[in-house]
Amino acid sequence: MPGNTFGSIFRVTTWGESHGRAVGCVVDSPPAGMELKEEDIQKELDRRKPGGKLSTKRKESDRVEILSGIFEGLTTGTPVSMLVWNRDARPEAYEPIKDLLRPGHADYTYLAKFGFRDWRGGGRASARETVARVAAGAIAKKILSIFNVEVVGFTREIAGVRCEINAGDFELKKIFELAEKNAVRCPDAEAAKQMEEKVVEAMSRGDSVGGVVEVVARNVPAGIGEPVFDKLDARLAYAVMGIPAVKGVEIGSGFSAARMKGSENNDPIVLRNGKISFETNNAGGVLGGISNGDDIVVRAAIKPTPSISMPQKTVNVKKMEESEIVVKGRHDPCIVPRAVPVVEAMVALCIVDLMMVQGMIPRSFVKR
Amino acid sequence: MPGNTFGSIFRVTTWGESHGRAVGCVVDSPPAGMELKEEDIQKELDRRKPGGKLSTKRKESDRVEILSGIFEGLTTGTPVSMLVWNRDARPEAYEPIKDLLRPGHADYTYLAKFGFRDWRGGGRASARETVARVAAGAIAKKILSIFNVEVVGFTREIAGVRCEINAGDFELKKIFELAEKNAVRCPDAEAAKQMEEKVVEAMSRGDSVGGVVEVVARNVPAGIGEPVFDKLDARLAYAVMGIPAVKGVEIGSGFSAARMKGSENNDPIVLRNGKISFETNNAGGVLGGISNGDDIVVRAAIKPTPSISMPQKTVNVKKMEESEIVVKGRHDPCIVPRAVPVVEAMVALCIVDLMMVQGMIPRSFVKR
Amino acid sequence: MPGNTFGSIFRVTTWGESHGRAVGCVVDSPPAGMELKEEDIQKELDRRKPGGKLSTKRKESDRVEILSGIFEGLTTGTPVSMLVWNRDARPEAYEPIKDLLRPGHADYTYLAKFGFRDWRGGGRASARETVARVAAGAIAKKILSIFNVEVVGFTREIAGVRCEINAGDFELKKIFELAEKNAVRCPDAEAAKQMEEKVVEAMSRGDSVGGVVEVVARNVPAGIGEPVFDKLDARLAYAVMGIPAVKGVEIGSGFSAARMKGSENNDPIVLRNGKISFETNNAGGVLGGISNGDDIVVRAAIKPTPSISMPQKTVNVKKMEESEIVVKGRHDPCIVPRAVPVVEAMVALCIVDLMMVQGMIPRSFVKR
Amino acid sequence: MPGNTFGSIFRVTTWGESHGRAVGCVVDSPPAGMELKEEDIQKELDRRKPGGKLSTKRKESDRVEILSGIFEGLTTGTPVSMLVWNRDARPEAYEPIKDLLRPGHADYTYLAKFGFRDWRGGGRASARETVARVAAGAIAKKILSIFNVEVVGFTREIAGVRCEINAGDFELKKIFELAEKNAVRCPDAEAAKQMEEKVVEAMSRGDSVGGVVEVVARNVPAGIGEPVFDKLDARLAYAVMGIPAVKGVEIGSGFSAARMKGSENNDPIVLRNGKISFETNNAGGVLGGISNGDDIVVRAAIKPTPSISMPQKTVNVKKMEESEIVVKGRHDPCIVPRAVPVVEAMVALCIVDLMMVQGMIPRSFVKR
Repeated sequence: MPGNTFGSIFRVTTWGESHGRAVGCVVDSPPAGMELKEEDIQKELDRRKPGGKLSTKRKESDRVEILSGIFEGLTTGTPVSMLVWNRDARPEAYEPIKDLLRPGHADYTYLAKFGFRDWRGGGRASARETVARVAAGAIAKKILSIFNVEVVGFTREIAGVRCEINAGDFELKKIFELAEKNAVRCPDAEAAKQMEEKVVEAMSRGDSVGGVVEVVARNVPAGIGEPVFDKLDARLAYAVMGIPAVKGVEIGSGFSAARMKGSENNDPIVLRNGKISFETNNAGGVLGGISNGDDIVVRAAIKPTPSISMPQKTVNVKKMEESEIVVKGRHDPCIVPRAVPVVEAMVALCIVDLMMVQGMIPRSFVKR
Repeated sequence: MPGNTFGSIFRVTTWGESHGRAVGCVVDSPPAGMELKEEDIQKELDRRKPGGKLSTKRKESDRVEILSGIFEGLTTGTPVSMLVWNRDARPEAYEPIKDLLRPGHADYTYLAKFGFRDWRGGGRASARETVARVAAGAIAKKILSIFNVEVVGFTREIAGVRCEINAGDFELKKIFELAEKNAVRCPDAEAAKQMEEKVVEAMSRGDSVGGVVEVVARNVPAGIGEPVFDKLDARLAYAVMGIPAVKGVEIGSGFSAARMKGSENNDPIVLRNGKISFETNNAGGVLGGISNGDDIVVRAAIKPTPSISMPQKTVNVKKMEESEIVVKGRHDPCIVPRAVPVVEAMVALCIVDLMMVQGMIPRSFVKR
Repeated sequence: MPGNTFGSIFRVTTWGESHGRAVGCVVDSPPAGMELKEEDIQKELDRRKPGGKLSTKRKESDRVEILSGIFEGLTTGTPVSMLVWNRDARPEAYEPIKDLLRPGHADYTYLAKFGFRDWRGGGRASARETVARVAAGAIAKKILSIFNVEVVGFTREIAGVRCEINAGDFELKKIFELAEKNAVRCPDAEAAKQMEEKVVEAMSRGDSVGGVVEVVARNVPAGIGEPVFDKLDARLAYAVMGIPAVKGVEIGSGFSAARMKGSENNDPIVLRNGKISFETNNAGGVLGGISNGDDIVVRAAIKPTPSISMPQKTVNVKKMEESEIVVKGRHDPCIVPRAVPVVEAMVALCIVDLMMVQGMIPRSFVKR
Repeated sequence: MPGNTFGSIFRVTTWGESHGRAVGCVVDSPPAGMELKEEDIQKELDRRKPGGKLSTKRKESDRVEILSGIFEGLTTGTPVSMLVWNRDARPEAYEPIKDLLRPGHADYTYLAKFGFRDWRGGGRASARETVARVAAGAIAKKILSIFNVEVVGFTREIAGVRCEINAGDFELKKIFELAEKNAVRCPDAEAAKQMEEKVVEAMSRGDSVGGVVEVVARNVPAGIGEPVFDKLDARLAYAVMGIPAVKGVEIGSGFSAARMKGSENNDPIVLRNGKISFETNNAGGVLGGISNGDDIVVRAAIKPTPSISMPQKTVNVKKMEESEIVVKGRHDPCIVPRAVPVVEAMVALCIVDLMMVQGMIPRSFVKR
């Protein structure tokens, strides 16, 4: 597959480059009869938007326009096309380094794959593409909210500083409020402060730092996810690993399960209010690839932003000789906080799709 | 998608249950004109087969039969159907616990999804399904070998004991030889010994342990993987997370990237023999979702086997009351070593598919 | 796509060659909790089976074996694998003509595509592959019967002789009974007699004849089929045109619509028992690609069997020189009657899949 | 599938409604390094555009804008997003009939499927959606031209008047020139004149007429199309039947094959300049679902435009009572000539996709 479409029944196709005319997507298709306004999308885009002391200086208002699929305020069940115009594109900033491969970026691999490349800020490989994912994810979240499913993300770790809060102990609304209060999107205020310091310090040296994003999906009904390849966790891994800068994905106890005993990692099964539930959630809400009704817990390892202003070894592909590169420009010293809404979006898209496959979401909300 | 098919152009569909008549798959389709014998498949199945002191006592010779797609010893370009008969199925062993949900297993989630379940050893959710993946993977490996691509896996960690060998420093053939020498499939003999002890100890207590499998794919040409959702790493994550018992997947520096600086994690780009290469391989062979020509390094966190003979809390679904369960039967105290060929298979299937999408593998090897 | 899988949510993958070991398929997957026995499949296979005075002399009992997906007589919601062993394969009959391209067959095109070919009766291109389609279709029909949907086919035309019965005027059970009474599967006894004569006459000259199959699906609920590419009629066209020997597909008034006025072809909309219905059915049950609740009417043009024993011009590909060929062997002088259950199967598979996409068929029939 | 995406490797996703803001598509993705300008698209859109004495009076300049996927005049190998703003939308014209179901249209079926509908000119079901198909098809044609493949369509029949020209006897460029000379797009000038008269006559009575479009694809290499479901002809049937108003599709001799003998319909195989060819082309370029190198010949039966100004029986869905409808507005009395570029587009999209699947089109045209 060319790979710009995600999903099996509920699908999003994205398009656009960092310094092209616009970025956008087609969502094919939300159930008919759902209220949908540009504001529903905008509030999520605003969370991803650059701005703030720890972020790129690129100025994009990121105003979304809905071009199709809505009639009299309701979704029609046909594709919703959305776009965001690029307003502050400055391709000329990349002119001086257009023949130099930026380490940690896709410059070389796009060249290898396509024979030439759009060097304006990485073109299609830029994280600006995630605008379209967040826009699509906003629709997915709106659909999920009708079924009482919440999807909330936050920063679990930056530069080795860990958030010590367990989301399972809180209402997700609370986690959201706490996380949105600070620049690093961490609900643990103490950790947040230290994270900020680490980011500022790295920034001051022209370096960057990485971290871990955690997303929790609550009230997902038991029974979604397909045996044997299209497991819920496999789909989540696919969805999240495909986000720029993600190098690892884990579910529930994740890599720490590798060091646990079976007697520790198995979640005891109990009855709560007459319903089957689990005493612990090492499973992260997934057993045998199918949701068990508990919180779905996904974590993504985000690498440090590859664009750093320290000098790095590279190759000039025009002259085919070794060279040095200093990546100037408007970059985030830590992409983790802005990745939070992107991971949320991918998780939400994934869950809507699998709920549709399971027949849990109707094709129309209109009663006749 | 019902989810029993993997791949976009090169596809495998698997079928069969742990205690049903057989397990099998359809591979659609290898390029035409490739020599293919049952022995090619058998040698991989033999690596996955139960046996040895650390493994289940179920006795399966796992003889594969090829039913289609071969003519005069060569693949025809049409589907290769393969099956393995189940010889030592003992469903009656599960009769006493058929109403008890086994913790850590898919019993409850299959029930939630399908309304009832095949309780004979987990039915379709059993790791016995991976016989079919390994059979298909054997074909993928054979195709890759024609292009000089090697895929070798080994045990990186069991019960906290780490293999300290860096596969990048060795010929993969050597890693393979070292790993296949011991019961835990670890190329580091010293670590292997400690791992075995940990497994034996857990087994003696009726408990189980987990670990980490690492697979390296060498000589994969630069340029495979698709922007933006069907990235090589996203596909690998999907492929590997969909294996039973996997709770996390990482590429290259993976979760440790979250604690690195940009200046540490970026791989310096250099010329080696006039060709673009990388001084380090934190990328794990993937940049922007596309292969960069370096070793592709994938790691999978494997949870401890959920079947343990220690008593566990559970629910009897017939009576809908809390109960205790002791899972007897023929189980591996540590599934990690037997997971190695399964992860290899999924990685190989993934790479063949993306090489085909990139047009790097012809539809026929026959010259006319 | 390699193309051996049909369907989006309800999928069938077929495999096997005319003179290989077996033919079979994987159906992924019927809803859980449905009774399914080999007899359900067998009765459809028996309709497709060779036999009778107008058919090939190849003797195949075509006994189906179900290998997976059933537990205690019920479908589990996981793949149903089925196979039929080839008992009367006689590849040696093709030895003398293995270098001669049979006109009207896929010999040349398989050679062009794959570089070499399985010359034993056309290998994968043989209509024997349709055994697997009929087996899968039997499951689809069983599912549909639960929703009161009937799918019945018959011979509309052979060698220019037309069946003058309008299926819309009858119960489909009646059409079925009438059609199954004679060797040409035509419910119009008078026409059937003439058709038989035409077939016998062609056979006597070593020639063959073609015809038209019509399939009617009744009680399909309004609302299945997807805008804009995955229309119900587009899917039906795909499903039916992919059957060997089909050269045309039409829905409702079909090609005759090209000669009608809008005022003639539009079906007047009326209320019948308070429900929206149509006075006529030129639409063939499909408007804008979506079912309208009326009979779905599909017609397939079947070309005359290409295997004829009259001498034909061809090329010897080994010597690359022009030659003559006489195709001996066990061939049907008219494939139309045996195509009827195949077209039914493809129509049924198509409808089940689209009903599932529309959320009209649950993933399980078991109430908990 | 929701069904707004076409293709397996080379894919187009369309969006937009007749009286919404715009219509558009995402083409995912043309090979990298191909020159592509808006003019390449525009010239095809101009052929589909309303205008001329036999067409709707809606005034749309249909100016295409390319929003992504091009860098320095060349395709980048990533999605090309295109849109056309709706300029002359007049939804108010539909207000008076918004509760009346238009016979022959998708009004009822969209209502049945989605519970409510965009009544502005049919919304998504409008033939205006084909703007996006033609735009995508223009890219497909440009790709094909690099491989010397031509795709040319024309009107074979209108209101029973047949074009008597056999495209196989001419250069396709000539057929194109002749067809584009008149308002009915028929290369047979004499027939064209009679067709025009028939259309004018129907128009004068407020009625409409149908016809047949024929498309020929020349120089398609032998070997494209996949066994057994994704046959070239099956894909073509799917592609073409999914066009609004199409009720039948045939390949080569098509429905007339049903009345031929095997000895007549089989195309004799001969050597021409040392290459395998066929004396006749009843196969329409497809044998066993795979191209044979000969002209691919596809015919589509187009029903008469359902929008007619004669009074028709219908139902008022608000009052749920029988009523009469007169469809005023700006409609084509015969859609056949404007359907020609649409059928061409779908055939071209189909062929590019299958050539890519066969590995015949590289992912990049840039040599490094």
